[in-house]
Amino acid sequence: VVRWEPNARGRLEKAAMELFSERGFDQTTTAEIAKRAGLTERTFFRYFADKREVLFGGAQGLKDLLVGSVAEAAAGSSPFDAVAAGLEAIACYLNEGREFAVERQAVIVANPELQERELIKLATLASAIAVTLRARSVPDPAASLMAEAGIGVFKVSFERWVDATNTRSLVDLVRDSLEELRVVTAAVTR
Amino acid sequence: VVRWEPNARGRLEKAAMELFSERGFDQTTTAEIAKRAGLTERTFFRYFADKREVLFGGAQGLKDLLVGSVAEAAAGSSPFDAVAAGLEAIACYLNEGREFAVERQAVIVANPELQERELIKLATLASAIAVTLRARSVPDPAASLMAEAGIGVFKVSFERWVDATNTRSLVDLVRDSLEELRVVTAAVTR
Repeated sequence: VVRWEPNARGRLEKAAMELFSERGFDQTTTAEIAKRAGLTERTFFRYFADKREVLFGGAQGLKDLLVGSVAEAAAGSSPFDAVAAGLEAIACYLNEGREFAVERQAVIVANPELQERELIKLATLASAIAVTLRARSVPDPAASLMAEAGIGVFKVSFERWVDATNTRSLVDLVRDSLEELRVVTAAVTR
Repeated sequence: VVRWEPNARGRLEKAAMELFSERGFDQTTTAEIAKRAGLTERTFFRYFADKREVLFGGAQGLKDLLVGSVAEAAAGSSPFDAVAAGLEAIACYLNEGREFAVERQAVIVANPELQERELIKLATLASAIAVTLRARSVPDPAASLMAEAGIGVFKVSFERWVDATNTRSLVDLVRDSLEELRVVTAAVTR
């Protein structure tokens, strides 16, 4: 019999982020996370395969939303606008969770192995966008270049968003960076 | 007394690439690399800290050349043109070593850990470009966005260059991708 615990996932996430921040990621065990959340380790493993998944468990959903939004952008959209639609969709989705994102970023920045994992996540998202653009009949290298530039926009916007002094929404920052990318790539030497 | 071996570095690189290709990176030891090259393991360690350095030993030189070229681009160059100058400089430098680059790419693609290392190398290059652009008075987020887009151009060009069917030079492919990036980011939905 599985005992139902109210909001177990949320409690585990909160406990994990607290411990990662206090002690560091490597120094935290799943047993300690469960204990801090007032749950059993068995309950932890019902929600997460390991402690890293607390930080990266959302990656697949993010990828699906991104790919889906690029794929479903209006017919005739330019590659730039299709990628913009995808980035705005994930920005909207993430925007509610800034507190978690700020804590998560601090944990990742402090740990080289997690930074590598984050780079792999971003590279995977770039590949997925490129595949989706090709399916929209965008030829290479334009598809790959727009995918890489789009993920660059996301990375830069995300870093601005989690900055302590920031008050703007992630969607706003993504739109701003997309426009800046256009300006900087168009600028010619006088 | 250190015995001088003619072209020891080149022989060790060649032996390492052969073994990595034949057996895989993980299944190759430094002792085997030295033996294949007809040298001692001690000689290997005079040139490389470990077997991974055979693949990544050039990273610092590449970064210095890239950063130097971006920094020294003509005064008044747009951020796009300064980054283009940097990418063309490293493309010129790498262009002579296509055979090594093709083998290296195959070894890296076959090994997730080396892929991570390669992503870190590229992220480090992007950060270095952003720092250099800021020193040229390019404000953020333009500096970071142009740096990320530039590394995207390099990644895509490099992958096209090492493709088995490719006959174009890396410099040519970098110029082509820079132009394509301009076109794809400028395109508006009709």
